[in-house]
Amino acid sequence: MGEFELLAKLRARLPQAGPRVELGSGDDAAVTVPGGATATSVDAIVDGVHFRREESGLGAIGRKALSTALSDLAAMGAEAGEAYVVLGAPADLDEEGFLALLDGMLAVAAATGTTLAGGDVTRAPALTLAVTVVGHAVSAGAFVSRAGAEPGDVLVLTGEIGGAASGRLLLDDPSLAEAVPADTAARLRARQLDPTPRLRSGRALAEAGARAMIDLSDGLAGDAGHLAQASGVALEIDAGALPLAKGVAEVAAAAGRDPLRLAVSGGEDYELLAALPADRLADASTAIGEAAETTLTPIGRVAAGEGAAIRLPGGEPLEAEGYDHLAGS
Amino acid sequence: MGEFELLAKLRARLPQAGPRVELGSGDDAAVTVPGGATATSVDAIVDGVHFRREESGLGAIGRKALSTALSDLAAMGAEAGEAYVVLGAPADLDEEGFLALLDGMLAVAAATGTTLAGGDVTRAPALTLAVTVVGHAVSAGAFVSRAGAEPGDVLVLTGEIGGAASGRLLLDDPSLAEAVPADTAARLRARQLDPTPRLRSGRALAEAGARAMIDLSDGLAGDAGHLAQASGVALEIDAGALPLAKGVAEVAAAAGRDPLRLAVSGGEDYELLAALPADRLADASTAIGEAAETTLTPIGRVAAGEGAAIRLPGGEPLEAEGYDHLAGS
Repeated sequence: MGEFELLAKLRARLPQAGPRVELGSGDDAAVTVPGGATATSVDAIVDGVHFRREESGLGAIGRKALSTALSDLAAMGAEAGEAYVVLGAPADLDEEGFLALLDGMLAVAAATGTTLAGGDVTRAPALTLAVTVVGHAVSAGAFVSRAGAEPGDVLVLTGEIGGAASGRLLLDDPSLAEAVPADTAARLRARQLDPTPRLRSGRALAEAGARAMIDLSDGLAGDAGHLAQASGVALEIDAGALPLAKGVAEVAAAAGRDPLRLAVSGGEDYELLAALPADRLADASTAIGEAAETTLTPIGRVAAGEGAAIRLPGGEPLEAEGYDHLAGS
Repeated sequence: MGEFELLAKLRARLPQAGPRVELGSGDDAAVTVPGGATATSVDAIVDGVHFRREESGLGAIGRKALSTALSDLAAMGAEAGEAYVVLGAPADLDEEGFLALLDGMLAVAAATGTTLAGGDVTRAPALTLAVTVVGHAVSAGAFVSRAGAEPGDVLVLTGEIGGAASGRLLLDDPSLAEAVPADTAARLRARQLDPTPRLRSGRALAEAGARAMIDLSDGLAGDAGHLAQASGVALEIDAGALPLAKGVAEVAAAAGRDPLRLAVSGGEDYELLAALPADRLADASTAIGEAAETTLTPIGRVAAGEGAAIRLPGGEPLEAEGYDHLAGS
């Protein structure tokens, strides 16, 4: 099957384009009428670097490629709009494999209101997906960048952390699954293989007045450092307040790891960390409740200074470890 | 050097962002205020598939990655705006190599008014550049798609063809260079390794009333077929009218190839093929002259029917061959 036949087959599966898309996939470029302001982010995942093809399955790889790209839009408080996908295909990816990847992406696109508006397919030595996503807001000022946190702000975190890193441990050593019930182990593995972009939560936090926001792709410790640096402030995080995913403590213990350290060092939870004026915390909690996507937990505060420190209840700092996608720590 | 240090170094080299960019590289997403309508296209090139790293040099690879992406915007009649780059880097790409790639892209960005507004760097088994470009126009209707050609329209072609395919032949067999003067051989190789997106010509043709347009990435025969199909018309091209680049005849002869067949089959010339109402040809020629980028040649006409036929002066059809990027035919 040639490239053109394949592209025609892929395009035939695309649902109707979203309201901003005037001309979708199949021409030299897609044409959109954005309205206000746009947020654009690119993200790539490569077999052997970010995932293992035989471990994930092609549908989950397609979902993760789009979900992790959309997570950056969630961190801006953007409404998801369009996605453009480059697929680097190794010689052994057949038509069925292409369609499984596409169906994975289409499932996330449907769940998030994203239009797959264009793409390119090329040969490549390893399966590679590079995804560009475009999100929308009424104006540039409605987006929430990493800069803008101010001393006195409260730090909030959506959902729970440590799940993706624990899932990585379970995938690398299946015997660890004996430490938790089967459904808990399955949920932790899914946090690693099939993350959810917190788009509704991101918009709710933006509307509630978040002054700075970032998504957790590199781990709370590292990403808090990025937000602190961009905002020119210090972040003080209470380790005792951190919401760990169910089963993280047991899996970490079975692996001989400290659960808190695993949770703050482990990347790919794709939760959102935001700085809010303290008097907006109640509004933000209400908005997150109405978004009905996940929970919101206050985990610390913004102060004058620099850097991000995570402190144990006794006051001593919790040192993070490095994180490498397929190494689990 | 870690990913974050490298990204910081790359960002430090970026010039000031264009007028539509409110927040550039370094946050979760870039923020732009597009104004009217946008045209977005993605394009990827991979070492061993679209180029050979040792043959091109990293600066030319960076230039070609951005130029070929921008060629799709030229084919829409768009004004170049922003580019987002995914770089898949093999283990042996060092800091100097990164910077050479970036400088190549920045040279094309500066020449075309494009802002490098975001990117992602990942490990990959082969050097891979996936580039998303966003172009602008006052409204969606100001863009020129592949659909819209009407029977009676005249077909026009910018510049000259066959140069990139001849350059491929010269790169694969350096002894063929004896057939032409050294500066001609150098120009043909440059057509292959370092193409120019016809952005000014594309806008001039759009403003002159082009009804359908496509850029020649797959070769005139194939791309004319795409335009014919999208417009639901037949294209009749006079082989005798085709403007071949200087030296194509001699290189083709030395390689035992038919020059016309080589020129219509060879991809990567990145010239523009457009359909114009016949009474707009004079205006279009004037506009192309004022754009001062390249020439414009009438090469045929649009008729009712389907498919694209290239006819020799005697009337018999010229059959095209397949084209594979690194195979030269």
